[in-house]
Amino acid sequence: MAKAIPSRSEDYSLWYNELVKKAGLAENSPVRGCMVIKPYGFAIWEKMQQTLDRMFKDTGHENAYFPLLIPKSFLSKEADHVEGFAKECAVVTHYRLKNDENGKGVVVDPEAKLEEELIIRPTSETVIWDSYKNWIQSYRDLPILVNQWANVMRWEMRTRLFLRTAEFLWQEGHTAHATKQEAVDETRQMLDVYATFAEEFMAMPVIKGVKTESERFAGAVDTYCIEAMMQDGKALQAGTSHFLGQNFAKAFDVKFATKEGKEELVWGTSWGVSTRLMGALIMAHSDDDGLVLPPKLAPIQVVIVPIYFKDEQLAQIEEVVAPIVAQLKEKGVSVKFDTRDTHKPGWKFAEYELKGVPVRLAIGPKDLEKGTVEIARRDTKEKSFHPIDGAVDHVMHLLKDIQVNIYNKAKELREENSKEANTYDEFKELVEQGFVYAHWDGTAETEDKIKEETKATIRCIPLDQKEEEGTCIFTGKPSKGRVLFAKAY
Amino acid sequence: MAKAIPSRSEDYSLWYNELVKKAGLAENSPVRGCMVIKPYGFAIWEKMQQTLDRMFKDTGHENAYFPLLIPKSFLSKEADHVEGFAKECAVVTHYRLKNDENGKGVVVDPEAKLEEELIIRPTSETVIWDSYKNWIQSYRDLPILVNQWANVMRWEMRTRLFLRTAEFLWQEGHTAHATKQEAVDETRQMLDVYATFAEEFMAMPVIKGVKTESERFAGAVDTYCIEAMMQDGKALQAGTSHFLGQNFAKAFDVKFATKEGKEELVWGTSWGVSTRLMGALIMAHSDDDGLVLPPKLAPIQVVIVPIYFKDEQLAQIEEVVAPIVAQLKEKGVSVKFDTRDTHKPGWKFAEYELKGVPVRLAIGPKDLEKGTVEIARRDTKEKSFHPIDGAVDHVMHLLKDIQVNIYNKAKELREENSKEANTYDEFKELVEQGFVYAHWDGTAETEDKIKEETKATIRCIPLDQKEEEGTCIFTGKPSKGRVLFAKAY
Repeated sequence: MAKAIPSRSEDYSLWYNELVKKAGLAENSPVRGCMVIKPYGFAIWEKMQQTLDRMFKDTGHENAYFPLLIPKSFLSKEADHVEGFAKECAVVTHYRLKNDENGKGVVVDPEAKLEEELIIRPTSETVIWDSYKNWIQSYRDLPILVNQWANVMRWEMRTRLFLRTAEFLWQEGHTAHATKQEAVDETRQMLDVYATFAEEFMAMPVIKGVKTESERFAGAVDTYCIEAMMQDGKALQAGTSHFLGQNFAKAFDVKFATKEGKEELVWGTSWGVSTRLMGALIMAHSDDDGLVLPPKLAPIQVVIVPIYFKDEQLAQIEEVVAPIVAQLKEKGVSVKFDTRDTHKPGWKFAEYELKGVPVRLAIGPKDLEKGTVEIARRDTKEKSFHPIDGAVDHVMHLLKDIQVNIYNKAKELREENSKEANTYDEFKELVEQGFVYAHWDGTAETEDKIKEETKATIRCIPLDQKEEEGTCIFTGKPSKGRVLFAKAY
Repeated sequence: MAKAIPSRSEDYSLWYNELVKKAGLAENSPVRGCMVIKPYGFAIWEKMQQTLDRMFKDTGHENAYFPLLIPKSFLSKEADHVEGFAKECAVVTHYRLKNDENGKGVVVDPEAKLEEELIIRPTSETVIWDSYKNWIQSYRDLPILVNQWANVMRWEMRTRLFLRTAEFLWQEGHTAHATKQEAVDETRQMLDVYATFAEEFMAMPVIKGVKTESERFAGAVDTYCIEAMMQDGKALQAGTSHFLGQNFAKAFDVKFATKEGKEELVWGTSWGVSTRLMGALIMAHSDDDGLVLPPKLAPIQVVIVPIYFKDEQLAQIEEVVAPIVAQLKEKGVSVKFDTRDTHKPGWKFAEYELKGVPVRLAIGPKDLEKGTVEIARRDTKEKSFHPIDGAVDHVMHLLKDIQVNIYNKAKELREENSKEANTYDEFKELVEQGFVYAHWDGTAETEDKIKEETKATIRCIPLDQKEEEGTCIFTGKPSKGRVLFAKAY
């Protein structure tokens, strides 16, 4: 069988694009920059969503829903925010179409022009803080811990499935607090939630850090982030948590009466992850044969493929497989027994490999004779025969082991490709291969120049940054610690 | 304490609006016709969503996600569809804002005009069938059983929270089949799913039927619906399931190769329910003191209010309450023990009544002495004292009983207010109070005239319509069975 997708070494970017399409995750839509998330891709996203939603609720958050459309004037209320988002937003100007002159198509009805244009939310701080103004009067109304699952739109010029699309799905948390400390704690807590999710569920190690001023969210005082390394050594920002200070409270005049009866501005945070995580998940683990999914997020965790030539054989196989399926389901494992006669076993093997199903069982007439089953793991491709009796235990062991193994593998890759650079020449060489920790003089000017010359950016100032005297690789000016540079998605 | 909301008899419409706001379900947003769904309202919607999602998956459907924006030209591809939706859609014409001349606000950048305008989906048949064209080649690719949870937008002129909003949340199922029979079966199956959900979870009896031509979905061959009676005797369409025939396959050229190697057009269905169900749920059961929620959809099923004057008393109450909470949680009951000292018990009683919490426990020093707890049910307002030991069993019994009781109550109301009319005079009188079953000559003309004169519409031709010779109440022409008329939301 011909390879379904090109290899990573051939063309990493093409490998990614083809994998996303061939594995049935997503495809481009007729609307420029927008994607269709196909059922298999959506099933993975749903698992991510359900897990995150539980984590948000466990930390005291509730879901709500705010309008898709935002009055144009709202954007301008926060000076940085408008700079960040006005240049790439979809604008609704009319609310009706009418038949065209020849009656065959429709055209915009000029009489249905909106008084004020509306934009499709690129993020919802403005419309949400406008609501919070009405929700918050006293300290008793605080904190507000709200999350929203929604679609947002940013009119990106160059798009790639999941990684950068005009419309994407995400969650955006928006919280309001009585004190600065509480808001900072919330910001950091949600960063930790994201890091835990990335590492424990996506099996993707991340670096926690804070963004430099130039990479900060438009309207935030501080932007915290988690950064992951993809297999090509590039960084991917996998989640951000913003301490908004009192910026949006100021812009939307959101004040509260303290216990002591004083009037103060409310403190805010916002935090989000998006379908971009799908891109991260794919690039963190997959190989030249297709997806490699962490068992905790795989829609199908175990697939069982019967190998048979006559219908009686299938009946015999079914008898042996039924209790395995029942036991796995009882243990909460999602298992598929693929008895379709429209496809051959070899085709099915390739298909489930492409789709990243963590564990595959195959059972044929010879196995029935011997009382064995072939069990294959997707990550290492190891295959072995096991007595049918112990099959379930072995599968359960494998599911745990694969989750740990692919995390370790990703971590090793990152460690191998994370280096310290002490000169700019060294830096330029190393940053082609992965993460580089280097001294920086703390100015946006230097950051910009390095970006211009190398395309690498400061991904973050790591939270676990060690204090270390040094000199900026670019200007030679003094620095107190290394920051993380990388080329990024 | 003053009544939080007006009574139903005073002003049903005002009662509804105030209840939605005061119970923390939803509010109007700064964007005309769009609503903010507040956390408590969203928690109810989430329960509906999760239940329906499970029912869809149990009937073999998968979720996917299609773009928010639809090229204007797509609408025109299906002649009825464009008639139905072009007149009330939000149109995106530009993709960028820029600073205005004085640098204080932003204006639309005329240079960022789209070549083809995009509309925000009012429903997704067009963009989905455009995708299906690529997904379907052979009979092996069928059926496609896809559902999408999404926001949609219809620029309604007169809006009401949940019942009719410009933006609303919904699910839309879109399926593709090889045969007409399979598509019809799917349409009917999903109607049954909706009916089951309405009756078993919302505790809201519904009439299943098929729409007349003038009430049919734009682009459908047949529209099936479920219709519920609200407390004011008006009908509310709670869900629709459309048999699309080959209309969208024709419009988007979606053909498949049959087993026999012939090329045929694909058959389609679509079906949806929306946040409108929230309006139905509220109006089906609630009373002058607030919401009455069916236990199966209540975010908080049981609330426990401690009554105490000194902190030691709270500690003693907590000791007694902790095992009750633990046991209820173990049984999957969502329970809240409200120990807040910022609000008095009386305030809390009114608050949870307003929010429709099905069962309330109250326990104070006297109860501790006697070993009892006061248990109140929201639907009938009956209160009684129970030994603490048997409290959990009684609560479990009440949760079941309330679910059944409010269903029966709603059904009785409907039966009392459902009449047969045999003359137009009788009809005009009866239709002011509820559902009227009457003979109709089968023409759109008569339907229109009756609507014009009485504001009542044919809600549906009931699926269980009895064959009965009769004459149209309006024209006197022959008819073979009664149809369901009502004024409607």
